[in-house]
Amino acid sequence: MQASSRRAGGNAGQIDLNADMGESFGVYKLGQDEALLGVVTSANIACGFHAGDPTTMRVVVEQALAAGVAIGAHPGLPDRVGFGRRELAITPEEAFDLTLYQVGALHGVVRALGGQLRHVKPHGALYNMAAARFDLASAIAEAVRRVDDQLILVGLAGSALVTAAHQASIAARSEVFADRRYRADGSLVPRRQAGAVIEDPAEAVAQAVQMATAGVVKAEDGSRVPVAADTLCIHGDGSHAVTFAMQIRRALEEAGVRVVA
Amino acid sequence: MQASSRRAGGNAGQIDLNADMGESFGVYKLGQDEALLGVVTSANIACGFHAGDPTTMRVVVEQALAAGVAIGAHPGLPDRVGFGRRELAITPEEAFDLTLYQVGALHGVVRALGGQLRHVKPHGALYNMAAARFDLASAIAEAVRRVDDQLILVGLAGSALVTAAHQASIAARSEVFADRRYRADGSLVPRRQAGAVIEDPAEAVAQAVQMATAGVVKAEDGSRVPVAADTLCIHGDGSHAVTFAMQIRRALEEAGVRVVA
Amino acid sequence: MQASSRRAGGNAGQIDLNADMGESFGVYKLGQDEALLGVVTSANIACGFHAGDPTTMRVVVEQALAAGVAIGAHPGLPDRVGFGRRELAITPEEAFDLTLYQVGALHGVVRALGGQLRHVKPHGALYNMAAARFDLASAIAEAVRRVDDQLILVGLAGSALVTAAHQASIAARSEVFADRRYRADGSLVPRRQAGAVIEDPAEAVAQAVQMATAGVVKAEDGSRVPVAADTLCIHGDGSHAVTFAMQIRRALEEAGVRVVA
Amino acid sequence: MQASSRRAGGNAGQIDLNADMGESFGVYKLGQDEALLGVVTSANIACGFHAGDPTTMRVVVEQALAAGVAIGAHPGLPDRVGFGRRELAITPEEAFDLTLYQVGALHGVVRALGGQLRHVKPHGALYNMAAARFDLASAIAEAVRRVDDQLILVGLAGSALVTAAHQASIAARSEVFADRRYRADGSLVPRRQAGAVIEDPAEAVAQAVQMATAGVVKAEDGSRVPVAADTLCIHGDGSHAVTFAMQIRRALEEAGVRVVA
Repeated sequence: MQASSRRAGGNAGQIDLNADMGESFGVYKLGQDEALLGVVTSANIACGFHAGDPTTMRVVVEQALAAGVAIGAHPGLPDRVGFGRRELAITPEEAFDLTLYQVGALHGVVRALGGQLRHVKPHGALYNMAAARFDLASAIAEAVRRVDDQLILVGLAGSALVTAAHQASIAARSEVFADRRYRADGSLVPRRQAGAVIEDPAEAVAQAVQMATAGVVKAEDGSRVPVAADTLCIHGDGSHAVTFAMQIRRALEEAGVRVVA
Repeated sequence: MQASSRRAGGNAGQIDLNADMGESFGVYKLGQDEALLGVVTSANIACGFHAGDPTTMRVVVEQALAAGVAIGAHPGLPDRVGFGRRELAITPEEAFDLTLYQVGALHGVVRALGGQLRHVKPHGALYNMAAARFDLASAIAEAVRRVDDQLILVGLAGSALVTAAHQASIAARSEVFADRRYRADGSLVPRRQAGAVIEDPAEAVAQAVQMATAGVVKAEDGSRVPVAADTLCIHGDGSHAVTFAMQIRRALEEAGVRVVA
Repeated sequence: MQASSRRAGGNAGQIDLNADMGESFGVYKLGQDEALLGVVTSANIACGFHAGDPTTMRVVVEQALAAGVAIGAHPGLPDRVGFGRRELAITPEEAFDLTLYQVGALHGVVRALGGQLRHVKPHGALYNMAAARFDLASAIAEAVRRVDDQLILVGLAGSALVTAAHQASIAARSEVFADRRYRADGSLVPRRQAGAVIEDPAEAVAQAVQMATAGVVKAEDGSRVPVAADTLCIHGDGSHAVTFAMQIRRALEEAGVRVVA
Repeated sequence: MQASSRRAGGNAGQIDLNADMGESFGVYKLGQDEALLGVVTSANIACGFHAGDPTTMRVVVEQALAAGVAIGAHPGLPDRVGFGRRELAITPEEAFDLTLYQVGALHGVVRALGGQLRHVKPHGALYNMAAARFDLASAIAEAVRRVDDQLILVGLAGSALVTAAHQASIAARSEVFADRRYRADGSLVPRRQAGAVIEDPAEAVAQAVQMATAGVVKAEDGSRVPVAADTLCIHGDGSHAVTFAMQIRRALEEAGVRVVA
């Protein structure tokens, strides 16, 4: 795992498909968890801070166990009204504490239901802040290691979070996106820039296949950039989310890529 | 453990002293955790619902580990503004889910810091509801058992929660109070009634010693009532809380009672 | 207004149609506010406790003003995860304070946007508790009166809340339901009982028309019960909500009932 | 008011003393509201987001009315665990909405209790963000104006918030600090820098008097900087807060400064 994510190309020939889940809250339903569980190989389950609640978490863990999908924790910032998408100026110590709490909670829930927590992927602004700031990334990695040193930490390919996982001696997986445009340095084109999102499904599918088979992506300037592609993020919202997820999975399999957790 | 709590008299000759802790929240400080940790043998730590937050929890767990005090989870209702003291009409399923989440979270935090979670004691209205309603008690006991079947469930002596722990095949401890008046049937005089609280410290200390040494308490009607006294609740608020806790501990030890977790 | 609600039959010949709105929260969308605003004459807008948030509230107030619908506050219990539907043991003082805060907030928002708050209808468990307990009803009525003594308080027909409004010298409106079965004493058949909800749309429409035109409803035992029908509750959830709302409105108008706020 | 805050020196010869209040929450007590109400001339009352709750707000409004102190709203970020002190990446629209809601709520509570809301002073990170970013400041000023165009907006002397108030055609007051060191450009030495806080009470009192009487402050480089001093912030936490507040007030009065709201 670690080895693969150190190489720029990931583990060519195989890839994991992950999706965020358990983001409903009380009466509010979000996403299409059950349908997506039939397509992806890893589920990142919200832990009650940016989304989710004890009942939602328990139900989706049961569903993921029934579907045989690898279960991960998806900790976020304590900003429910902002869905954890707004940066909040937390200290590394606070990042450690809130990761410990949330991963601990889901770890307990999964074990209580007879399963095993496999990975951790921070959510939203916490994910982005951890990609850019090593002090936060390091605090998160240390919290994950403390809960269970067999957990895998999932971060943006090439980000501080992946580096921090290595330094904390826990496994890391590099995440890539089918529908986001990359820059020549391997980073993502920021969302606020034009062309950040690939709107054409066919082009997104092609990018996913190329990353998984060749470990490269065509950047916005036309250059071919090496990218570690351990796991591909599947979005769960939008009316076509499940259809698109199935399309990507089929294309990967037809290209000879093994889709495994 | 189970055996002792089945006998009306508890384990005569020894008793545990427990106190609620970690009930601060953000900038808000409550209680005198560090001082009490020098007196009690068990700490019930709030889990972030009625009180507590990830940082508060981590800090008090570190302090409890340093003090060598047995650590327990203190799950409550999701009612922070009411401090978990107001009854909320939750279903048994919700009781299961919120106990699982909170105990799971603290279990993870304690293990991450190198310790071991030993017991669970519900807080406030959840404690009272679980004392009276077997369906809620049973859901809580099952959640505790699922997280770790070596955990001890602490409930009001003679209550549904103690019975539910036995039925779930987990250990139970019966809790008694030094400063609360008992009725002839072994239940507490409700707080809203006059004379519910024993105001005289000397009388409260005497009641604690009698419960721990003889397994009986003098009820409001003057009758002597058998009571299981596995663990004695020490209140942490009020200016004299720590002094009073030390007074009780000294009196118990002078009466030949072993004070152990 | 007051006069009409004192008579058992309401203001025969006219009725208000009200619906709960603004119950979305952050990224979570609930209900079909804009479509319903084209059908109802009064909107009860959630105030940020059981549902809603500052942005949701502002947006729906703007929409209601644009649609020319009468705006009311829809205060609830501070139980977001339970959507304010679970009874919480609040004191009358707490009922006063949380009503004052929520109604005050919406009152401010509506005025800021150039409108006028017209009524208040408590939500969920707060509505039911206020229907049964006069002390809570009275505290709520007093809070409403304090914010603005021209506000109309909407409660279950025949309930303590309507009585409390009269005693506080503010206007009251009696609410009826098209799709709920009534008992011979004019109260609703509790939801947990079989037959509580009228599943057949045609029967529900007929009940609505009979209440609005004749001021009576056929109870579960077949008897005809007088009922004050000032305002009819329209449910906003479910896929057929808007269609059903339009059906009811058309039937009322065809029966010669004026549908007005 | 506006005129005075446009001049660099404020209204020399008089000053307002303000303190943050109502920052308790449920069982958690913070500050010494009642004692401070005997010293200050303006109270900034938390509105339930960073601190405060409906009961706390109602109680402190009653106390402020009894004390005859001018009442202001003290809206904050929705970050209770961080006490509104951590920057959160909100949009101007969100700043508008959360200010509208919170100021509306307190406006309603104050009127309901027979008083009049006089001013608005944002809290913590919202105050600092509004001092530096005109888009946020402008959104806040507009929300305040919409609730009541007679409200006074209080901001850091020389900040974007004061400018935004002027542009929105509402009154502004410039706030100064007795115990914070200033830079030559009139801004505060950031807290993270050494020497940011004036530890010596006598020096802090002298600075307050000089700002109020001469409209200048000695900057860290020794230069004398003009500063608008309409209102002086009094801190309510710490064991000596009330004593220090009384000391400042006495020194101001002895220097011939009128202390008025």
